[in-house]
Parts: sequence; C-alpha cells; structure tokens
Amino acid sequence: VPEEITFTGEALDRAAEHRADPDWLAAQRDHPHARAVLAGDAGIRVDGERLALAPLASLGAGEPLLLGLDATGPVFAVDADPRRDGERPPLVGAHGEDTASGMVGLRTAAALLPQADAGLAAHAAALVNWHRRHPHCSVCGAPTAVEGGGILRRCDRCGTEHHPRTDPVVIMLVTDEDRVLLGRQRSWPAGRYSALAGFVEHGESLEEAVAREVKEEAGVEVGPPAYVASQPWPFPTSLMLGFIAPWRDGEPRRVDAELEDLRWFSRSQIAAATREEGPPGLPPRFAIARRLLEHWLET
Amino acid sequence: VPEEITFTGEALDRAAEHRADPDWLAAQRDHPHARAVLAGDAGIRVDGERLALAPLASLGAGEPLLLGLDATGPVFAVDADPRRDGERPPLVGAHGEDTASGMVGLRTAAALLPQADAGLAAHAAALVNWHRRHPHCSVCGAPTAVEGGGILRRCDRCGTEHHPRTDPVVIMLVTDEDRVLLGRQRSWPAGRYSALAGFVEHGESLEEAVAREVKEEAGVEVGPPAYVASQPWPFPTSLMLGFIAPWRDGEPRRVDAELEDLRWFSRSQIAAATREEGPPGLPPRFAIARRLLEHWLET
Repeated sequence: VPEEITFTGEALDRAAEHRADPDWLAAQRDHPHARAVLAGDAGIRVDGERLALAPLASLGAGEPLLLGLDATGPVFAVDADPRRDGERPPLVGAHGEDTASGMVGLRTAAALLPQADAGLAAHAAALVNWHRRHPHCSVCGAPTAVEGGGILRRCDRCGTEHHPRTDPVVIMLVTDEDRVLLGRQRSWPAGRYSALAGFVEHGESLEEAVAREVKEEAGVEVGPPAYVASQPWPFPTSLMLGFIAPWRDGEPRRVDAELEDLRWFSRSQIAAATREEGPPGLPPRFAIARRLLEHWLET
Repeated sequence: VPEEITFTGEALDRAAEHRADPDWLAAQRDHPHARAVLAGDAGIRVDGERLALAPLASLGAGEPLLLGLDATGPVFAVDADPRRDGERPPLVGAHGEDTASGMVGLRTAAALLPQADAGLAAHAAALVNWHRRHPHCSVCGAPTAVEGGGILRRCDRCGTEHHPRTDPVVIMLVTDEDRVLLGRQRSWPAGRYSALAGFVEHGESLEEAVAREVKEEAGVEVGPPAYVASQPWPFPTSLMLGFIAPWRDGEPRRVDAELEDLRWFSRSQIAAATREEGPPGLPPRFAIARRLLEHWLET
C-alpha cells in the first residue's frame, strides 16, 4: 500500500463526542486561539508553503465550521465568499494562484503543502463545498441551519437532518501481465493518460462498480479486482478507491464519449513516464492514479 | 475475500450510454415487457421466495425509475407510496411482512431471496430512498424533476443537477491474535455483538476513518487496517466497506454513548457462535459483519 497519500494525514481531533453540546461549541468559537482555514471561489488561503491559519475573530465571512482541535485549540473552516440565499455557488477553486489574497487553487495547494496541511485543506474544502450546496432542505425546500459545528444541517420546517455527503469513486488500473490499460479525457493536458474511474452506484459493491465502469468505458471484462488504497478527493466531495483489476476478455474500445483515447502501455513505457520520459504523460504525484501506477511498477 | 455478498449480484445492464436520450427512455417505459420492482413503506414486493416483477403498466403509483435491462426488457423501480410535496417520507421498510400485499421488509427479503433478486431489491430500495428525500433542490429550494430515467434530478429553477448519494461506511474487526473486539448497541436483539462501524467523513481515507472510528467508539489505537470486502446496504443508501484492523494500544472502553457494551471474544467463542452456540449472538448471515467474522476464523 502506497504511503503518504496526498489529502490524508490531517492531525485534528474531530471531537465527535462534544458536538451535540451548544455550550461547548460556543466556547470553541470564543476560544482565544480559535483559527480558521479560509476556503472560497479562488481556492484556499496559504502563507508561503504552509496553509494559512488566520485568527477566527479576524474573519468576517461565512459561518465558522468546526474541523476539529489541535494542541493549540479549535480549527474552523470559513467560506471566503458566502452566497445570498438561492444563488447557485461555484465550488472551492481548484486551479490558479492569486498572490494579492494568498489564495491558491486546491490542486496547486496539493502540490505545494506539507501532507498534514494538504489533508486539512481537503477537509475544509470538501466541507465548504457541501455546505455551499445545501442551504435548503431536499425534502421540503425550506432553509436549513448548521448544527454540531457543521457536521449536519437541519431543516427549519420539517426537521430533517442532512449529513455531509462523500461520493465513493472507484479508480482502477486494468492490467494484463506487463501492460496496463489507460484512458485519456479530452479536457486533460496534451499527452496525459490515466486510470479509468467512475462513481459507485446504488446496489453494487466496489468490486461490481469496478467491473461495470471498465465495461462501460472500455468494453472489456475484468477478473476480481484487488483494493490498493483510498484518497479523499475534494472536487467537490469525492473519495477515490483505488484498485488493480486483471484484464480477462475483450479488445479495448472507446464506449464512453468522455474518453478521447484508450490504449495499452508497457511496463517500460510507464517506468519511463514516471521519470518524465514519456509518452504518455502521467497524472501528478498527488493523484492516486499515479500512486497506483507506481505501486504496479513495484509488483 | 468472502463470496456471494448479499445485496450484490444484480444482473442488469444499467444502460448508462442511453440515458441522455429521451426517445430511448420513452421507448423503455412503453416496452411491452417493461416490469417493475415495487418498493414502499412496508418494504419490497415478493412473490413467494422470489422478487415480484409486476408489469409496469399495471402499477399506478410513483414515477418509474429505470434500474436497467435484462434479457426480457427494461426493469424499473416504482415507489408504492409516493408522497405529497413537502411531506417528510419514511424510508423503504426494513422489517416485517404483510401477506395481503406481498410486501416484506428489506431485511426479511435479504434472508429470503436468491442473490440476484436481493441485489435488485437493494438497488431499487436505495434509489427509491434517495428520490423520496430529494424532491427539492438543496441549493435553492425549488422542486426538482427526474432525468435520465432516475440517475439524476434537476432543479426547475437554478438548474443544479443532483446525483444519487451513496454513503461510505467503514466496518471493522479489531483483532489481537486469537481475540476480536466486538460492540453491542442498545437497540440490537438481546445478546448480539458485532463489528464497530461508522460513516466516512470529509478529508479522510478509509484507513483513517477506521482508525478514527475505533478510537471514538472504543478508545483504542489500531495498526494499518486490511480491506476485505464491500456490501451495498440500502438503509437508506449506505455502502459498507469491511476491514480487519490489528489492535495496537489501549484498553477498550465505551466512549461512544451509542454502544452499550464492548468486549473481546476468543476465536473459539466466535466459532461456537457461528454454530449458534454462543454467547455472543452474531449478526445475520446476510450482514457483512458476519462475513468478516467468518473470514477471520479462516485466517
């Protein structure tokens, strides 16, 4: 199993056992060392090569969402660009860099920050993304309000509790001895190929989702897939579940309109590509697809 | 890896590539062999020990949701008890049996049906559960409408697409050589103990979720957990991700108020319990916790 997956390694105590206590929550907001991660349309605020943790009292933006506690005190996430009611919000920014505000896109942050900081950034961004998209109740349409410091929202009218959603995605290398099947999406940088992937659907196991997605995207059958590792992926609220699946039958062909190309690469081509001597170009080091490829090279 | 996990094994083609085509969707609804799984407040409709597949045209209840295609034609899910707008709906029933209507709770169905039928029941129930809770847009509160035969709902006002949610849950056996740590929830049948479990949160990998939940519920530290298997769990829309996690440090103690008791059991106690010669009582054969225990006994 690959070590040090980017977007993991946050070191906070999430304090589940205290979150039903409004007095405890109020004390965290009033804590003299309460700090906040700022997440907004332009990404996440950094200070040099570290995540910026601003004093909570200095921030006048959205409602503070409690991420957890570190040795100094509570750490919150704050939405830098809160919306008026009913306005359709964008997601926390993934790309770019704004030197004036110190905001950088999440993907930029992933490549820049030490592991624990990137993990905290992923937690903050996914939580802000979820709250941005859930000001209303999906059952009755009435406004919802934050409870538990942000681990749920409750409907003002019908009382339904809404919990943050995490979307499981399977991502898999289809392998056949010394070759691996990779696909290319039109929107990717020129020359890049990566693992196939797709959302898990209702009524299927991870292993069934792997088989269905490979069939849908590449028209091939695979044998029992082997789980390798997982990675939180806050674009907006996914969880990547990495597998290696042995090819069993069928000639790869583009079925899914999303893929521009699909092809086998040899072990030596992938080894060269990890040294940036491709083609192909590979996904960045912070992506689990890259870690799956490196894991496969070592096996 | 355990074979034949209950709620997997549905044999439909989900037809992802056709779902954007309204003419194709209309043709499926008008298909002479269109059939439907009926899911409602009392559970799911069965016909003896098989899932009942009624002709779609014979059902006058909620909007048909396309599950997929089998060799005979399209198979839909239909909500047997659709609600008025704004009314807070219950979930598809889990318990009980109504001989007059042929409806049985999903847990009853899990123990009764052949594997492919239980998988189809799980798909139908999870999808109906999701649609029941999403008639409105969580961004702006306006009504949403079914698209793609039920794989999404779109907001009539702001246009936001809402996709069905699947909630990843880690479920784990904490093991220490020849003993295993199990917990007991107050609501369970007398004497039953089972694996610890909890929802995956934002900004954590599955492995981190396992460690956090074990710490929160039992106060102990675990080493790197090993993935075993997964199971769709339509109560209402979960996906169970089963692990075995080696105990590393700490004396187990009840931290979480949800647990009534927490204790180590020996390998021979668990072996006797699988022959119904416990204590403890174990979860039913259709639950992944039971499969994890059987897997551990074999290792």
